[in-house]
Amino acid sequence: MNDYQPVPGDRFSFGLWTVGWRGHNTFGEAVRPALDPVEAVHRLGELGAHGVTFHDDDLVPPGSDAATRDAIVKRFTGALAETGVTVPMVTTNLFSHPVFRDGGFTSNSRDVRRYAVRKVLRNIDLAAELGARTYVCWGGMDGAETEAGKDDAAALDRLREAFDILCGYVRDRGYDLRFAIEPKPNEPRGDVLLPTVGHALAFIDELEHPEMVGVNPEVGHEQMAGLNFAHGVAQALWHGKLFHIDLNGQRGIKYDQDLRFGAGDLKEAFFLVDLLESSGYDGSLHFDFKTPRTEDMSGVWESARGCMRNYLILKAKAAAFRADPEVREAVEAARVAELSLPTLADGETLDDLLAEEIDLEAAGERGYHFERLDQLALEHLMGVR
Amino acid sequence: MNDYQPVPGDRFSFGLWTVGWRGHNTFGEAVRPALDPVEAVHRLGELGAHGVTFHDDDLVPPGSDAATRDAIVKRFTGALAETGVTVPMVTTNLFSHPVFRDGGFTSNSRDVRRYAVRKVLRNIDLAAELGARTYVCWGGMDGAETEAGKDDAAALDRLREAFDILCGYVRDRGYDLRFAIEPKPNEPRGDVLLPTVGHALAFIDELEHPEMVGVNPEVGHEQMAGLNFAHGVAQALWHGKLFHIDLNGQRGIKYDQDLRFGAGDLKEAFFLVDLLESSGYDGSLHFDFKTPRTEDMSGVWESARGCMRNYLILKAKAAAFRADPEVREAVEAARVAELSLPTLADGETLDDLLAEEIDLEAAGERGYHFERLDQLALEHLMGVR
Amino acid sequence: MNDYQPVPGDRFSFGLWTVGWRGHNTFGEAVRPALDPVEAVHRLGELGAHGVTFHDDDLVPPGSDAATRDAIVKRFTGALAETGVTVPMVTTNLFSHPVFRDGGFTSNSRDVRRYAVRKVLRNIDLAAELGARTYVCWGGMDGAETEAGKDDAAALDRLREAFDILCGYVRDRGYDLRFAIEPKPNEPRGDVLLPTVGHALAFIDELEHPEMVGVNPEVGHEQMAGLNFAHGVAQALWHGKLFHIDLNGQRGIKYDQDLRFGAGDLKEAFFLVDLLESSGYDGSLHFDFKTPRTEDMSGVWESARGCMRNYLILKAKAAAFRADPEVREAVEAARVAELSLPTLADGETLDDLLAEEIDLEAAGERGYHFERLDQLALEHLMGVR
Amino acid sequence: MNDYQPVPGDRFSFGLWTVGWRGHNTFGEAVRPALDPVEAVHRLGELGAHGVTFHDDDLVPPGSDAATRDAIVKRFTGALAETGVTVPMVTTNLFSHPVFRDGGFTSNSRDVRRYAVRKVLRNIDLAAELGARTYVCWGGMDGAETEAGKDDAAALDRLREAFDILCGYVRDRGYDLRFAIEPKPNEPRGDVLLPTVGHALAFIDELEHPEMVGVNPEVGHEQMAGLNFAHGVAQALWHGKLFHIDLNGQRGIKYDQDLRFGAGDLKEAFFLVDLLESSGYDGSLHFDFKTPRTEDMSGVWESARGCMRNYLILKAKAAAFRADPEVREAVEAARVAELSLPTLADGETLDDLLAEEIDLEAAGERGYHFERLDQLALEHLMGVR
Repeated sequence: MNDYQPVPGDRFSFGLWTVGWRGHNTFGEAVRPALDPVEAVHRLGELGAHGVTFHDDDLVPPGSDAATRDAIVKRFTGALAETGVTVPMVTTNLFSHPVFRDGGFTSNSRDVRRYAVRKVLRNIDLAAELGARTYVCWGGMDGAETEAGKDDAAALDRLREAFDILCGYVRDRGYDLRFAIEPKPNEPRGDVLLPTVGHALAFIDELEHPEMVGVNPEVGHEQMAGLNFAHGVAQALWHGKLFHIDLNGQRGIKYDQDLRFGAGDLKEAFFLVDLLESSGYDGSLHFDFKTPRTEDMSGVWESARGCMRNYLILKAKAAAFRADPEVREAVEAARVAELSLPTLADGETLDDLLAEEIDLEAAGERGYHFERLDQLALEHLMGVR
Repeated sequence: MNDYQPVPGDRFSFGLWTVGWRGHNTFGEAVRPALDPVEAVHRLGELGAHGVTFHDDDLVPPGSDAATRDAIVKRFTGALAETGVTVPMVTTNLFSHPVFRDGGFTSNSRDVRRYAVRKVLRNIDLAAELGARTYVCWGGMDGAETEAGKDDAAALDRLREAFDILCGYVRDRGYDLRFAIEPKPNEPRGDVLLPTVGHALAFIDELEHPEMVGVNPEVGHEQMAGLNFAHGVAQALWHGKLFHIDLNGQRGIKYDQDLRFGAGDLKEAFFLVDLLESSGYDGSLHFDFKTPRTEDMSGVWESARGCMRNYLILKAKAAAFRADPEVREAVEAARVAELSLPTLADGETLDDLLAEEIDLEAAGERGYHFERLDQLALEHLMGVR
Repeated sequence: MNDYQPVPGDRFSFGLWTVGWRGHNTFGEAVRPALDPVEAVHRLGELGAHGVTFHDDDLVPPGSDAATRDAIVKRFTGALAETGVTVPMVTTNLFSHPVFRDGGFTSNSRDVRRYAVRKVLRNIDLAAELGARTYVCWGGMDGAETEAGKDDAAALDRLREAFDILCGYVRDRGYDLRFAIEPKPNEPRGDVLLPTVGHALAFIDELEHPEMVGVNPEVGHEQMAGLNFAHGVAQALWHGKLFHIDLNGQRGIKYDQDLRFGAGDLKEAFFLVDLLESSGYDGSLHFDFKTPRTEDMSGVWESARGCMRNYLILKAKAAAFRADPEVREAVEAARVAELSLPTLADGETLDDLLAEEIDLEAAGERGYHFERLDQLALEHLMGVR
Repeated sequence: MNDYQPVPGDRFSFGLWTVGWRGHNTFGEAVRPALDPVEAVHRLGELGAHGVTFHDDDLVPPGSDAATRDAIVKRFTGALAETGVTVPMVTTNLFSHPVFRDGGFTSNSRDVRRYAVRKVLRNIDLAAELGARTYVCWGGMDGAETEAGKDDAAALDRLREAFDILCGYVRDRGYDLRFAIEPKPNEPRGDVLLPTVGHALAFIDELEHPEMVGVNPEVGHEQMAGLNFAHGVAQALWHGKLFHIDLNGQRGIKYDQDLRFGAGDLKEAFFLVDLLESSGYDGSLHFDFKTPRTEDMSGVWESARGCMRNYLILKAKAAAFRADPEVREAVEAARVAELSLPTLADGETLDDLLAEEIDLEAAGERGYHFERLDQLALEHLMGVR
């Protein structure tokens, strides 16, 4: 019997800032105590996670001297060694400190941009040292509340410059590290640069080393723009750019909820897992969630456990859905595979195409039987088949 | 005194389907009589438009025989000649007829895809004949209500195949024609392929002739995803891909309203016009609006007049805003131009950068004075400066 | 074994306009043939529905003479008699015809308002004759695109006048009929009067006979405003005003999708069914959906079947959820029942209350264990418990 | 010449928490220093405000002993006396402290609910002492992330109990004080109780003393649900329940932005001011905004100044709009006043009405000329008429 118990082979990872989120927001104070990163590693390892990730500041308090930093890193790597937990991804905090109030790589202040790049470069060394293969960049403060205050073309130039610098550095050092850009439409800025997966993918094509940069889509971020997350991830995969993924939950277009995975749009979560499992994606399955303020630490671990459990439940359902003979028949009736046939046959000319006629009335009457297929998916999701 | 009277040099154009929209929707019947395309040309010309655009079916009823088609085209070109109105853009209707119920270029039915490509090819000849330089493609029915029914990777493959065919055809014929993809997040499908400007820009990079394809962003379409239209257009410009633009109005995230330009988010319209005018965009300013069902034909012409008038009003305001010495001072105080300075100086090495220190506290206290700048913009917009 | 086969005792009903929707919308033509109301009755009866509902125009084409009307009604009642299908609810079409382009009860045109009231009064007689107990009023065209064109206070006065007239008529005739107002935030108007369940509930309190008027909330309509449907229905129930309900599906804030029940936000659907079943609601469970244009008639019946089936599946899950001992324990841990205890004890004075102290730190550390409870709900929903 | 300089007679007021907001949110630290309430009073008075408002904790730090509290209040009242600034409204913070993590009046914890009521009662005495006439209640933490954790009926019972207690207390003490409920759809909870103006209005009707309780609508809160704020306020006015109003700005459906008034949807702001000025509303015009984190204190005062200035600018424009003869003619053409005519004439019977016929075709062809009217409004707003 499937007990949906995660194991390291499931490739689940968590940010230190997720289980460590203390609950402060615009309207409320922290409700939970600080969590020691070493305890986080141990607990996550016990729960079955394979990896832990962090922003530089999550691990080493900003302003720490070298000795303090070294001691912290040593203690942390000790915990990793003890537990077998890895560090598949590292990222940088370019948003919390007041210095980033107008952004990091695209702050109007050149000294801040320089500091932002420097902060990332320094942390890349640590990432490489810890064996991370992915470096996520979320530029949440790179944006604007008024169009008058931000020259978008210049902002995109500076963003490109920053990524070209970072890629150059990684190449120079010979690190085996790729970057993943995390898009978000808004919050904490009124409008954020590179608001969706699409905008980030387009941006990447303008870089000096586009092959080194992909995207890190987050469920809630795309859904905050009302976009279908599964379709967005599918396009990222089509471009060969799904370098990392942030799994969580969001209930519609509103503030960034960061619910545990599965707690938002369940049907879209089902189709997402189906897509990830069928596409051969083999990167980390990273949970970027915030446990609601109602919860104490027991609730935090419950949330973390739920994230992984829900993924495994949906994975089993997606497999059963694909294996169901009635589903296969319904997929056939819906002509899904026919879309993989080229529209022009091999060697066919446009003259051939132009000479053809269609029986418009007959083709117009044709039904696609998607409702039956969707209902079958729903019934698999609800476990009644 | 500025009377905001449009002239052909303003490059305003309208779709036949805009002033000709009869008002049918999911819940209501047509409320206005059919509009003769020839009358539309005359009226638009009188109002000061330089151009008229159309879907194939707007001009020539589907199923017309060759003689009927020729007579219609002849009559139409006669009206163009009489009025001096041009046809800067043409497009194809791949969504109204039942045959497109699952899309055009990405219908699961191969015969429908072939028909869709054929329908475009035939209309491209007419577009070229009429001197159009831009061919817009809106694939509004290319999408899905259930993820189970659409293989996204295959859909993107087919979409690429279609554009590669179209570009090849235009090159073979030697037409001076570029394509512009119009993104939309949803409606009439639950989720539409290439939902935003970003997704379309990324897609274009995968084509055989990316230089022949750009985007045709529409105000309301991006705003239906809660995205800032001015920022989206700025990114399209940065990629050199703003080939055409659809101007209209939308009041928030809801059904596609297609209000007249200016009647939606006025502040964003101001910044959009400022961007278009300052960026050197020299294509058509195309209005894609639907007059509300409350209006009779006099209201339709009132709306059309308002679209152009609002653009001209905002254009004058944007110029005054840029010329205002206090605004220039506020822009300086907001460090806007500093973003155009490269983050790394010419010849500077990363070692130089890494050796630098920032006074975090001082830089963190720095204010950006965007509120003052935004208020100045608002006061220009409201005409009180 | 539960086969989720609906029976009349389940109180499921469908509008003629749902299974009869031909698929026309702003962007597309009808894709399906007209459906004979008599066939609809037979098919719905076979599928297990207990009731059928209709707008006046769904049954009797507008403009029919008395003889035609009588013949149609006779044929229709014959089908009802044959099948045992009942007519629990009737409604009026005050939106499709051009005459309603500025609304029905609140059109700026007094003659239109008079016609709208008359149209309802005439249909109420038919409703009573067919034994309907609920009369739904959806005023979808009662709204505005510009605030300048509609005097809201006058509109609310006229709306009150209309309902006072209708209630007076029903009382005079001695009909056993109650009204249910259906709110909607927008579409087909830019903004609709009484946009949410809350606005309708507040309005009802101003009527002459508020006891005769309740609400008919629709899943998608509240969700189009980003509101949680289960919470909205709970408030309607609290006011004793849930007179009818429209079940369907919507995937986020966008155009009105009218998906089949269960095909939208599945988790909210689960909690809705749990609420309806536990609250003692005993009215019709009415499906107001539109089958996507991709489907032929077989897909329409598939959708109708899915609506009922999904309700029954969720009903079984809700019962299992409530019966699960671990859920009961989790509900207890979440202090859910404690909210039913009055805040002040019986006979307690405010002086008593004011004299009390709380240990803020201890009470602030208290966790509510909602994550565990929500996860249990999710696992019941997914059928893995 | 109008210089839009506010004076106390304009009835503008500000919360201490608005100009005093330090900029912390989920993703960022405070960016500005603490602001002394006494300095706030002086600065707001200099800027032309007539009033200042506060949450209990804004003025007196939680946990202060009686002597400290008295000293603070004395110093504060001194500043009021010196400046002539009044305190028209007071409110309570029932959301920041961890104890309110599951709400105040509707926390599942009875001891927390008792504490919440006590906290309000104590602050009501101070409100009365300072001469406030309105007491605002925002229950932002009264809500849920999971439907399973909150019994909505019980929550509404407890909320009613709380308001009945508060009203009883005010009556017992003989205070001249009314309550105003502030609705909000979400944030900081996933779903908030009483999500819109409508839901709050309906709730009030269930109270023991409904005449003592009205609403405090906030621009951004209704717009976060995609609702038109002017229409919502109009309904509140129609019910006689607009007891207070929170003016600010929001750019669409997203996190709560609290921009300065005028910086969000400008057209809706215009119609709102027009409504407030024409309806005879004579309460405070209260700004509840948060200056973006990009700003230092100079930007905060710039924002505060802009809020008032924008109101005055829009007020002048609304007056000019109403006075414009062409507007009057357009209003007439749009049949706006005809909506104030009762649908039934005085003494008319339903038989009279039922005997009437309408010329459907002619009435259906009638246009309403709203586009012209809306364009005139827009041109007044832009200052080009």
